[in-house]
Amino acid sequence: MRFRQIFRLIGILNVFIGLSMLAPLGISLIYSDGSTFPILYAFMVTSGIGFILFLVTRTTDYSSLSQREGMAIVTLSWLSAGLFGSLPFLFSGSIATFTDAFFESLSGFTTTGASILNNIESLPEGILLWRSLTQWMGGMGIIVLSIAILPFLGVGGMQLYKAEIPSPVVDKLQPRISETAKTLWKVYLLITLVEIGLLFIGGMSLFDSMCHAFCTMPTGGFSPRNASIAYYNNAYFEAVITVFMLLAGVNFALHFKFLKGNFRVFGRDPECRIFLFILAALILLVTCNIYGTVYHSIGSAFRRAAFQVTSIITTTGFVTSDYAQWPALSQIILFLCMFIGAMAGSTGGAVKVIRIILLVKYGFREIFRLAHPHAVRSIKLGRKPVPEEVLSSIWGFFILYVGLFIVAVIFMSALGLDVFTSFASAAATIGNVGPGFGLVGPVRNYLTIPDLGKWILTFCMLIGRLEIYTVIVMLAPAYWRK
Amino acid sequence: MRFRQIFRLIGILNVFIGLSMLAPLGISLIYSDGSTFPILYAFMVTSGIGFILFLVTRTTDYSSLSQREGMAIVTLSWLSAGLFGSLPFLFSGSIATFTDAFFESLSGFTTTGASILNNIESLPEGILLWRSLTQWMGGMGIIVLSIAILPFLGVGGMQLYKAEIPSPVVDKLQPRISETAKTLWKVYLLITLVEIGLLFIGGMSLFDSMCHAFCTMPTGGFSPRNASIAYYNNAYFEAVITVFMLLAGVNFALHFKFLKGNFRVFGRDPECRIFLFILAALILLVTCNIYGTVYHSIGSAFRRAAFQVTSIITTTGFVTSDYAQWPALSQIILFLCMFIGAMAGSTGGAVKVIRIILLVKYGFREIFRLAHPHAVRSIKLGRKPVPEEVLSSIWGFFILYVGLFIVAVIFMSALGLDVFTSFASAAATIGNVGPGFGLVGPVRNYLTIPDLGKWILTFCMLIGRLEIYTVIVMLAPAYWRK
Repeated sequence: MRFRQIFRLIGILNVFIGLSMLAPLGISLIYSDGSTFPILYAFMVTSGIGFILFLVTRTTDYSSLSQREGMAIVTLSWLSAGLFGSLPFLFSGSIATFTDAFFESLSGFTTTGASILNNIESLPEGILLWRSLTQWMGGMGIIVLSIAILPFLGVGGMQLYKAEIPSPVVDKLQPRISETAKTLWKVYLLITLVEIGLLFIGGMSLFDSMCHAFCTMPTGGFSPRNASIAYYNNAYFEAVITVFMLLAGVNFALHFKFLKGNFRVFGRDPECRIFLFILAALILLVTCNIYGTVYHSIGSAFRRAAFQVTSIITTTGFVTSDYAQWPALSQIILFLCMFIGAMAGSTGGAVKVIRIILLVKYGFREIFRLAHPHAVRSIKLGRKPVPEEVLSSIWGFFILYVGLFIVAVIFMSALGLDVFTSFASAAATIGNVGPGFGLVGPVRNYLTIPDLGKWILTFCMLIGRLEIYTVIVMLAPAYWRK
Repeated sequence: MRFRQIFRLIGILNVFIGLSMLAPLGISLIYSDGSTFPILYAFMVTSGIGFILFLVTRTTDYSSLSQREGMAIVTLSWLSAGLFGSLPFLFSGSIATFTDAFFESLSGFTTTGASILNNIESLPEGILLWRSLTQWMGGMGIIVLSIAILPFLGVGGMQLYKAEIPSPVVDKLQPRISETAKTLWKVYLLITLVEIGLLFIGGMSLFDSMCHAFCTMPTGGFSPRNASIAYYNNAYFEAVITVFMLLAGVNFALHFKFLKGNFRVFGRDPECRIFLFILAALILLVTCNIYGTVYHSIGSAFRRAAFQVTSIITTTGFVTSDYAQWPALSQIILFLCMFIGAMAGSTGGAVKVIRIILLVKYGFREIFRLAHPHAVRSIKLGRKPVPEEVLSSIWGFFILYVGLFIVAVIFMSALGLDVFTSFASAAATIGNVGPGFGLVGPVRNYLTIPDLGKWILTFCMLIGRLEIYTVIVMLAPAYWRK
C-alpha cells in the first residue's frame, strides 16, 4: 500500500472540492445572502489542506495503482469530500453540530438525500446551492466509479460492465478512465442542462431549476423547498422531474450510445427492458391501490404513483405526497423499491436491477437443475452467458448488503427507535434513497435520530454508495496483509 | 411420471393417516367428549378412500422411483394429509368452514402451529389430541414414518427421504434408508416420552403433558390452552419446554450419536456450536432489552426471553408473553429468528443455521477474494470443504425463500392487511413458526385473515415445510417435460 500516492490523490481531490465552492460563493455574492465569508473560509481551508497534502506527498513513483490502492482511494475520497463538504454548513451556522453537518454533507456526496434540516427555505442561497452541488458532484463521481473503476476492481459483479466503456481497450486504468470520464461527464452535464432548461421554461425560478436539476441527475433528492416537489403542486414540473429521474436511473453508457446515434439501445439492453417493466408494473399496482382509497380520480392517483415510485426506485427521494399515509400494499412496494434500485452504471443506489435479474435467474436455474439433474445450463443475460465468477461476486454482494442492513436495523432499534423507523432508516440510507417511513418519513427528516444513530446511518450511506465491498474490504484483516 | 405408483403410495399413506385417528378415537371414548362418532367417520372416510386408491392402482412395476416422482409423492402426500386431517375438525363441528379446517390441519402437519381457533379449551379432548397428533406425525415427517414402517418403500425410499428432508448435508445414520428412518423415529419417540414424563411429574395433567410434548418435539406449537404455555405461569414447565424445544431444534442425527455414547457430539458439530452461540447471544440481547422496560427483575426478564427466543428460533411458536408489546429491538430479533430457524436435520423450519453459516462464509470469501484476487479459498464447515454445488443449491434456496416471502407479503397487503400483519403472517407461515405480529400476534390468531389470505398462507406453510424446492419444482414447466 503506497500511502504517499493515495494521499497525493486525496489532496488533489480536496483542491478540486474547494474550487467547486467558488460557484456557491458567486451565488452568495449575487444574492448578498450573508454566506459569502463562511463559504470563502471553507474554500480556503479545503483547498489549502488539499494543496499541502499534495506538496508533502511529492513522489516519483507513477506506476499504476493496485486494486487495493484503488479501493482505499475511493473510500477515502468520499470520506474526505463529506468532511470538507460540511465546512460551508458549519462556518455559516446553517447547521449547528459537526455530526449533523457531516451527515448532511455525506448524504449529499453519496446522493442519498437524507436531510437533518427542519427549515431548508431559511438557508442562504449560497448554502442551498452548495448542498445541491454536493449531490451533483457525487453523482458524477458515481458514474465514473460504476462504469470505469469498479468493473476493474471486480466489485460485486460490476465486471459485467467492462465491455460497456466507450473507448479503446487498454490495460492500464488511467488513460481509459480519463477518456471515459470525460465522455460520461459531458453526457451528464448535457442532460442536466436540458432539465434546467425545461424546468425554467415551465416557470420555475432559475435558482430552483438549477438546484433541482443538480439533485435529479445524481438521483440525490435534496430540494431547496421544505415540502420538496410537493411545494409547487405543478403537474408539468412533476412530469419533467419524473422523466429525468428515470433518465438518471439508466446506465449512462446507454445514454452515450444513444447520443452517438444508436437509438434502439434502450430497447435492446436486457437490464433496461426489465427495469422499465418493473417500473411500469409497480406504478400500475400503486395507482390501483391508491385510487379510491387516497385519491378520487385515476389521473391524480397515477400522477402521484408515477412520481413516487420512480423517485424511490431510482433512489432519488423527491416527494410529492406523504406516501407513509398510503395503504399497506403501496408502502410495501415503496419499501421494496428501496432495495431494488435502478440500473447499474446509473447514478442510482441500492442492489440494482441487473443483480436482481441474475439472482432470480440463479434461483430458477436451481429449479431447472432439480427437474433435469444432468442438464447443464449457464445463466445468460441477453444472449451472453454470465461467468460463474461474476455470479459469485453478486451473491457475495447480496449477502453483505442484506447482512449489513440487518445489523443496521438492530443497532437503530437498540437506540430506542420504533420498528418502522429502524427498518426504514437503514433501508433508505444503505440504498441511498433519503426519505423512509416512520420518524424519517417523507414529511419528516433525520434531525430527531440520536447522534450515534446518525453516525451509523452515515456509514450506511457510504457503504451503500460504494457498493459495499469497496468500504468493507478495508475493514478486513486480509486486506492489510501482504 | 408413473401416476399409478404415485397414487398407490398416496393411498397407502391415507390408510395410515386414517389408522392414526384411532388414538384420538380412544381418548374421545375415555372422556365421552361427544367426538367419538365424528372421529370414527373421519377414520372410515380416510382409510376407505386410501384403501380404494390402493386397490385401483394395482401395478407390477416396482422399479425404484425417480427424483421427480419422489417430489410428486411427497408434495401430494402432504396435501392429502392436510385434506383428510381436516375431517375430524369438520365432522365434529369444531371448525365450521373447510378453509379453516384445512388451514388448521395443514398448519398441524407442517408443524407450523398457526391456529384459527378462538376458544381452544372448548373443544372435545379427542379433537385436541388429533390436533396435537398432526404435529407429532408431521414433525419427523409422514414420509419418513412410512419409510420406517413400510419396508417395501426401501427401494425408492431415498428419493422420498431426500424430497421430504432436503437437508444440505445428508447424514446417513444407517446403510439402509428404512433403517435410518426407524432410528430417527425411535429417537424422536424416546425424547417425546421423556418430555411427557417430566411435565407430568411437575404436576401437569397427563392429557396436557401429552398434547404439549406432541407439539414440542416437532417444533409445532399447538397448545390445548387458549393462552398457550402462559396459562400455567409455571417456571418448571417453562424450563422443561424450553429445553425440549432446544432439543427439537438440534439435528436428530446428533441425538442418535449421543445416545450411542458419543457424548461430545454436540460440542464438536460446527452447526450446533454456532446455533447455540446465536441462541445464547439473542437471549442475552432480549433479556437486556426487556429488563427495566417490561419486566422489573432480571430473573423474570431472562425467563421470558429464554422461552420466547427459543420458541421462535426453533420455529415452535409456544407463547409465555405478549412479545408484540416488547420494545422494538426485541420484536426485530424475534422477527429475524423466524427466518434463521434451528439446525438442519431438526424438526424446525425456516432457512436453518447451516445455510446462514454458509451464506455468511460466502460473503466473507468474496471480501477475501477482493483483497487477494489470486488466492483460491474453498469454504469449509468444520474441517470439511463444502462442494460448490452444495453452495449453489443453498443460494438457490435462499433466493427462492426470500422471493416467495416477498410475493406472499405483497399478496397479503393487497388483501388489505396492515404492513406488520402482512410481513409477520408471511414470515411466520413460510418459516413454520405460527404466531407472528400484528393481527396474527402471540395473543391473537389467524381467524380474522380473509379466506384468500388463509389459502396463500397455507401454501406458504407447505413450501416452507418441504424446503421450497420439492413443491416449487412441480410448478415449473421443465418438470413436466421429458
